Amino acid sequence: MTIGVLGAGQLGWMLALAGQPLGLRFRFLDPSGEAPAGRIAPLITADYNDLLALERFARGLDRVTYEFENVPVASALFLQQKIPVYPPPRALETAQDRLNEKEMFQLLDIPVPPFAPVSSADEFAEAVQRVGLPGVLKTRRMGYDGKGQAVIRSRDDVPDAWDALGNVPLIYERFVEFERELSILAVRGCDGGADFYPLVENHHAGGILRRSLAPAPLISPKAQSIAEEYARRALTQLGYVGALAIEFFQTRDGLLANEMAPRVHNSGHWSIEGAETSQFENHVRAVAGLPLGSTEISGCSAMLNLIGSTPDPAAILAVPFAHLHHYGKAPRPGRKLGHVTLRAPDYATLNERLSRLAPLIECESDV
Amino acid sequence: MTIGVLGAGQLGWMLALAGQPLGLRFRFLDPSGEAPAGRIAPLITADYNDLLALERFARGLDRVTYEFENVPVASALFLQQKIPVYPPPRALETAQDRLNEKEMFQLLDIPVPPFAPVSSADEFAEAVQRVGLPGVLKTRRMGYDGKGQAVIRSRDDVPDAWDALGNVPLIYERFVEFERELSILAVRGCDGGADFYPLVENHHAGGILRRSLAPAPLISPKAQSIAEEYARRALTQLGYVGALAIEFFQTRDGLLANEMAPRVHNSGHWSIEGAETSQFENHVRAVAGLPLGSTEISGCSAMLNLIGSTPDPAAILAVPFAHLHHYGKAPRPGRKLGHVTLRAPDYATLNERLSRLAPLIECESDV
Repeated sequence: MTIGVLGAGQLGWMLALAGQPLGLRFRFLDPSGEAPAGRIAPLITADYNDLLALERFARGLDRVTYEFENVPVASALFLQQKIPVYPPPRALETAQDRLNEKEMFQLLDIPVPPFAPVSSADEFAEAVQRVGLPGVLKTRRMGYDGKGQAVIRSRDDVPDAWDALGNVPLIYERFVEFERELSILAVRGCDGGADFYPLVENHHAGGILRRSLAPAPLISPKAQSIAEEYARRALTQLGYVGALAIEFFQTRDGLLANEMAPRVHNSGHWSIEGAETSQFENHVRAVAGLPLGSTEISGCSAMLNLIGSTPDPAAILAVPFAHLHHYGKAPRPGRKLGHVTLRAPDYATLNERLSRLAPLIECESDV
Repeated sequence: MTIGVLGAGQLGWMLALAGQPLGLRFRFLDPSGEAPAGRIAPLITADYNDLLALERFARGLDRVTYEFENVPVASALFLQQKIPVYPPPRALETAQDRLNEKEMFQLLDIPVPPFAPVSSADEFAEAVQRVGLPGVLKTRRMGYDGKGQAVIRSRDDVPDAWDALGNVPLIYERFVEFERELSILAVRGCDGGADFYPLVENHHAGGILRRSLAPAPLISPKAQSIAEEYARRALTQLGYVGALAIEFFQTRDGLLANEMAPRVHNSGHWSIEGAETSQFENHVRAVAGLPLGSTEISGCSAMLNLIGSTPDPAAILAVPFAHLHHYGKAPRPGRKLGHVTLRAPDYATLNERLSRLAPLIECESDV
């Protein structure tokens, strides 16, 4: 079986590394000829909306998936005429628009922070009035890693934010006071059976994920089961197949869903070493119609992103129980170049080991 | 850093899968253009003794290693003029000749079964007399998976065995009564530091490894430390860098060394899921001059080879905690096409899970 993957970045690369041993072959399409997955599988270099390239890409494929949530829905639908596309393009469509996403959460009784759509300056003023301050004005589409956002602390911020972002459909969201950011990774097979990884604690800086702790400390079984129930509703609603990540704010009032990603997720990278079956393997198992693997974890893991620059591999690997994943991409400020997963039997040992590892991963990572 | 690997079979493929995330690049040379590692890294198709191809292979490499113990020593020495070759060609030379290997074990006070070199019919008769019956006549070189061997149960078997094998240098070994076959996987870094995986119990049939159990049940700490001490002597004697496997017979009189392999080994495949750092990652870490990773294990693992044919992946993956490694090779009788590692927290659970998995892996595997 050959699986076509739209996008050949580090997520695609890790999908292929996990899927090859299952006897699966891969083919990638990516606008960049330098994309990491091209090192281990055939790569067609083309824009995602190049129909001729998509035709060529599709030839002989058994399944199509994607590692990038901003793949044009039209391209996914075009491919779906010939080949099963998982997760379904409908998930892509929902996740690409923050308003649709929030409305789906509401429909499914998944709590979200207060929000309002914004398509004019008047509507913006009204939204700020109704939803409250402080808040964040966000583009509905194509936002990632903190791009396309403006923080609104007072009414004085409204005109500048509107000038900066007002030419596209927007959403205004109330900023909620949260204790921490959590995420859950769910996976659903072709037979409709779903499984879940434990909630993970995430630390962002400059809009980019810097560190995840898995499982998130001090999570009650009830919180885990609520998160799983929310994820299950989304999986069912979307007729989902594959891995789905949902990010939450943990607040005094419980979990509020922030956003979802219809793909393997940076906050699930720890699962390569920390779970019986990684998110990458489970995603390809689902897409290929194979039974899912156990999401059981062993001990605890910290995942640290390498952003902008990469430390000396020898220094990283000298830290006991550190596992390096170097994506082989050219360094660029703000770019995710790799990650390190640190493992330990318990949090105390993990923190001890982290105190050796963290100083090696600094500079831009600690912005 | 780019590592050149002589041989591009499943071992080379798993070396590259483990090494790529460390930021290492790979290039392979193999006589077969269909070799598995060619799917994930550049492959030069040529004989191992094709000097022009070796020149081309060597260009720009930082290190050379091998995944096949019958690579010509001359080729390794030729490459070593330009590039560090690990494990050292001396290890290759010793391991390629059963007599040299046994003599090295003796020199290092590592017990071995009684043996004698055989280079003539007279010497053979004398060896049988001196070493005793029953025994095995083996070619000194190029034997693997039970090939090039003749069992001698009585003096009547001597003439036929001589006729079958007598045209090359031979060794006659006393057949020892053993309780079971064990192996140890050792790894030594460029700095001389060594680490060890636990002893593994191996089951062969038809001269081919069928199943390994890791760690081997009922191993005393003393037996483990004796095996480590033996391996340490061999590593030091050979100025070794990389992974080294030594196979033992466990007898009433203790461990007797049978043979060694200067490479990653089939009996270490379980370490991909069952150890903190796999034998493949530790081999490339050593070869690249990187610090070794922890060999700590979690729970216990059974590794089952898929020989001659491969079962339906979906059936295998439906067994909880089964991990499939499909090499993507064309089926052929007696050919290793893949392996499955089954994991569990303890032997009782492992056996329970094995009772579901084993019936799926049968036919030729149970010859």
